[in-house]
Amino acid sequence: MPIYTAPTRDLQFVLHDVLEVQQSGLPGHDEMDPGFTEAVLDAAGKLASDVLAPLNSSGDAEGCRLENGVVYTPGGYKQAFEAMREGGWTALDCDPDYGGQGLPYVIGLATGEMFAAANMAFTMYQGLTHGAYSAIRTHGTDAQKQTWLPRMVSCEWTGTMNLTEPHCGTDLGLLRTRAEPQEDGSYLITGQKIFISAGDHDLSQNVIHLVLAKAPGGGEGTKGISLFIVPKFLLNEDRSVGERNAVSVGSLEEKMGIHGNATCVMNFDGARGWLLGDLHKGMRAMFTMMNEARLGVALQGYACAEAAYQNAVAYAKDRLQGRAVTGIANPAGPADPLIVHPDIRRSLMDQKSFIEGARALALWGAHLIDRSHNGDAEAEGLISLLTPVAKGFLTDKGFDATVQAQQVFGGHGYIEEHGMSQFVRDARIAMIYEGANGIQALDLVARKLPQGSGKDMMAFFAMIKAFCKEHGDNPRLANDFVVPLKSASKDLQAAVMFFMERGMSRPDDALSGSTDFLHLFGHVALGFMWARMAVAATLALDEENPDEAFYRNKLLTGRYYMQRQLPMTVTHLARIRTGADPVMALHVDAF
Amino acid sequence: MPIYTAPTRDLQFVLHDVLEVQQSGLPGHDEMDPGFTEAVLDAAGKLASDVLAPLNSSGDAEGCRLENGVVYTPGGYKQAFEAMREGGWTALDCDPDYGGQGLPYVIGLATGEMFAAANMAFTMYQGLTHGAYSAIRTHGTDAQKQTWLPRMVSCEWTGTMNLTEPHCGTDLGLLRTRAEPQEDGSYLITGQKIFISAGDHDLSQNVIHLVLAKAPGGGEGTKGISLFIVPKFLLNEDRSVGERNAVSVGSLEEKMGIHGNATCVMNFDGARGWLLGDLHKGMRAMFTMMNEARLGVALQGYACAEAAYQNAVAYAKDRLQGRAVTGIANPAGPADPLIVHPDIRRSLMDQKSFIEGARALALWGAHLIDRSHNGDAEAEGLISLLTPVAKGFLTDKGFDATVQAQQVFGGHGYIEEHGMSQFVRDARIAMIYEGANGIQALDLVARKLPQGSGKDMMAFFAMIKAFCKEHGDNPRLANDFVVPLKSASKDLQAAVMFFMERGMSRPDDALSGSTDFLHLFGHVALGFMWARMAVAATLALDEENPDEAFYRNKLLTGRYYMQRQLPMTVTHLARIRTGADPVMALHVDAF
Repeated sequence: MPIYTAPTRDLQFVLHDVLEVQQSGLPGHDEMDPGFTEAVLDAAGKLASDVLAPLNSSGDAEGCRLENGVVYTPGGYKQAFEAMREGGWTALDCDPDYGGQGLPYVIGLATGEMFAAANMAFTMYQGLTHGAYSAIRTHGTDAQKQTWLPRMVSCEWTGTMNLTEPHCGTDLGLLRTRAEPQEDGSYLITGQKIFISAGDHDLSQNVIHLVLAKAPGGGEGTKGISLFIVPKFLLNEDRSVGERNAVSVGSLEEKMGIHGNATCVMNFDGARGWLLGDLHKGMRAMFTMMNEARLGVALQGYACAEAAYQNAVAYAKDRLQGRAVTGIANPAGPADPLIVHPDIRRSLMDQKSFIEGARALALWGAHLIDRSHNGDAEAEGLISLLTPVAKGFLTDKGFDATVQAQQVFGGHGYIEEHGMSQFVRDARIAMIYEGANGIQALDLVARKLPQGSGKDMMAFFAMIKAFCKEHGDNPRLANDFVVPLKSASKDLQAAVMFFMERGMSRPDDALSGSTDFLHLFGHVALGFMWARMAVAATLALDEENPDEAFYRNKLLTGRYYMQRQLPMTVTHLARIRTGADPVMALHVDAF
Repeated sequence: MPIYTAPTRDLQFVLHDVLEVQQSGLPGHDEMDPGFTEAVLDAAGKLASDVLAPLNSSGDAEGCRLENGVVYTPGGYKQAFEAMREGGWTALDCDPDYGGQGLPYVIGLATGEMFAAANMAFTMYQGLTHGAYSAIRTHGTDAQKQTWLPRMVSCEWTGTMNLTEPHCGTDLGLLRTRAEPQEDGSYLITGQKIFISAGDHDLSQNVIHLVLAKAPGGGEGTKGISLFIVPKFLLNEDRSVGERNAVSVGSLEEKMGIHGNATCVMNFDGARGWLLGDLHKGMRAMFTMMNEARLGVALQGYACAEAAYQNAVAYAKDRLQGRAVTGIANPAGPADPLIVHPDIRRSLMDQKSFIEGARALALWGAHLIDRSHNGDAEAEGLISLLTPVAKGFLTDKGFDATVQAQQVFGGHGYIEEHGMSQFVRDARIAMIYEGANGIQALDLVARKLPQGSGKDMMAFFAMIKAFCKEHGDNPRLANDFVVPLKSASKDLQAAVMFFMERGMSRPDDALSGSTDFLHLFGHVALGFMWARMAVAATLALDEENPDEAFYRNKLLTGRYYMQRQLPMTVTHLARIRTGADPVMALHVDAF
């Protein structure tokens, strides 16, 4: 069975040494002293390791089942979900007005990493509820908030997002689900939705579906779409769970992974629902939650990689195979452990340097969301720009990292016994859902890059420029971090220039390079994170009695990223500069 | 259910326009006129599309099962295997002395691509038999060949390779299976082998295991290893199948993919076996088959990608989502097909340009094996050098291509219904078995590169240099093909120089860059293949009444590879040049 150990020390490093959350001047953040956050992370980590992780393989093997219209989750899920609720983990960063603990989102994300790493399929039940909670809290009326939120914060009721239909996912303008207004102000919802994660299950008393549908008079395309609250069970006057609504599970999807999560076909047959937010402005309501939801998926990408990496390390230290080329390392044994071999070490360093950089980016993103919730417009612009980068890059690279971790096991990685196949199969979905990564690249190039005449992009470059100026003369940072960051950042600027010059007249020129641009940006973002971590590490090493090995290892891991990963920006730029010609040259019939 | 269409035209192009097999002066090749090979490929393609492909999804879903010691393959496999046998496909490139048809290996590989693409798990039963056939044919005594080969050529009996044990796969020196010599010259084999593909099943009357084991007096490590023929059923005097040997299936592995192939734990409990080849020289006997076996796995990598690509194309043409940024392409429909979008086109071009380049490399490799069988030492050296490149690069990139094809389907790629998940899960094993790709990289850098003082590598460079000289002034080829090939080849030479300068004194410096070197080499090899295909296409376009669209598309697809894939060599070289420092800097405890 795969192991999982909570990376509390690394999370603490990012929270305090790098982001300095306690000093950020945000409401509630001043209470985030290292002792407090360590206690929170330790407790969450214990739940992740002791309760969630042991159910990961078994949940994958058992999967969910649909019997007589009722969905059952794998054995042990109910007890584990109860433990999540009782520990208050579902309420951590929720509004105290509805029973939440009111902690910053950045702490919620840090605990979320551990839960997702330990058991991604299981953690989705809570994750989707949090998304629905955010939507209702942002767009709901006071009455709606009072009605739905308290029991969603506690996860007595869970939530879903119902967007996709059989013929459309990305292009929601095509959707067919209808909402018929009733005299009492409610609507009757009719249509079929597919790929509904946590669509139904036995973990909660009620499931609160948020459903995109078309109400009369909204016009064609996405303009006519509204968002509705459609509960599985209608509520009685006293808000207790009442009669069943006309919503049912058509079937469960058979998937490549996340078997522990029930992916449902949902049938709405005149189900009663209530408008959430403004009529015909459902897409806007959806989009306000996107940054948070997409950052949550970005997190899954590197969290899965972290869990897979930990197991690859354990195997590489344990498995004896061959001898070190530089001399026998384990004379007492019949062979040396795998970890002595440079190519294994290269693989582990690829994984480790990615994961730690990704963690910093995700937590920085969460902190930017905390800032933006506090009215910081620059933070809001930045996170809006960085969200598709984090979602696309961290899930693409997170998947690659799970494949590398699996490879360390050789043939033992391909059989299901060690759980490495599951990490790969689970991580794969993060590249697809919450907007497939090609859509993230489109969002980045066509929407986020030009928004506000490129001010967010310029703010990002200004930040890197200021950083390089501040630390360019520091001999401990200059060659290993500042120089490569500057060089990679120049590649990113050159790509932006190319898009500006060519994209206006020939939009295909920009869109042909969109995925390369997202990855180029991702590398620069992780390079920036590593440079910031390096500054934090050198400062910490100057303190009295530092945890010397920890901080030196950060510098060495960061240097690896700068030297061996960051040079990818050159290739991405070269590809982007070829424009649309090579990409679009073939006639459709030639494929 | 996924579709599969045999790429006969593309195979014919490589065989005749590029490799000019008929003019190669090899025995038997002069009969390979285009009409003949087309007939062979058409017939094989029909079997692949009509019989094998329809069993791919069902075989994956059903898997193999072990009941009372008997292994059953999925429904339809027996009939399909019968069809393979009856069509003579198992005997195609086998020795006529044992019932084979004596066709060149290059044709065997071309048909093999189609079989593997249509149903990889199924085709492995024949593939492993072919490997065992080759081993016995090369190392067996006349009596052994007469005894075993005829029914293996016909696949009435199938074969296996028994190498891996629970505690060792790569490091076979550690293996524990013992061979006790008997007075009659036979041996009794005792031990446990794992991961034995096609180890047992219901498709043949007998299973001929080739088993690596240690016989007394051989010394420690790999030196003491011998290879034995151990049949499932012993033979009677008249060579008919007799009593059961003491070999049994312990269990079937649950795997990520290739569910239709029975991956067995094999228990040898004093099973009777006969020495194959020289005593204590089993490793050498294994290695003589390696080039062929590894090229067969390389083929699986791009064959899986081809099948996945075909389905991605069909989906991209069919699925309506969004509108082309350059203007509506499908005014009659509610949206445009996916294929209008540049990022989808980029993904399809990545897949297509890789697959066609990979096909050329694999067929060239097979042709080099045909040459080496005919005593061509340069060809033997070249294929020995190229084998780890083809195996590692085509399976790594082939897997990536299946992931890209799956991504085109969005959420529909993640559910099992469309078969895209299976292509990814099946392709994954090719990176692992027949020597994990890290081992291929090690073999390349530590063994193949320096062998004969680097003469094979020099021969490869000389070939590229001559090519560039010959075609550098051709205006239709220079900028698009020759210039980028020359540049990429220089990167490869620079990497070789780095290894030569540093690798002797610090072997870790070379081994830390081994995987990057393999990929750098792979890109140059595919770039060379594309340049050769471009030459063939321009020559064909000069003929009267050429198939103009076909050849122009070759040039455009090749140009894509040169412009958008080949620039990866820059990044690989940059990584290699960092040497071992960043890779080996962390203490083992820091992981």
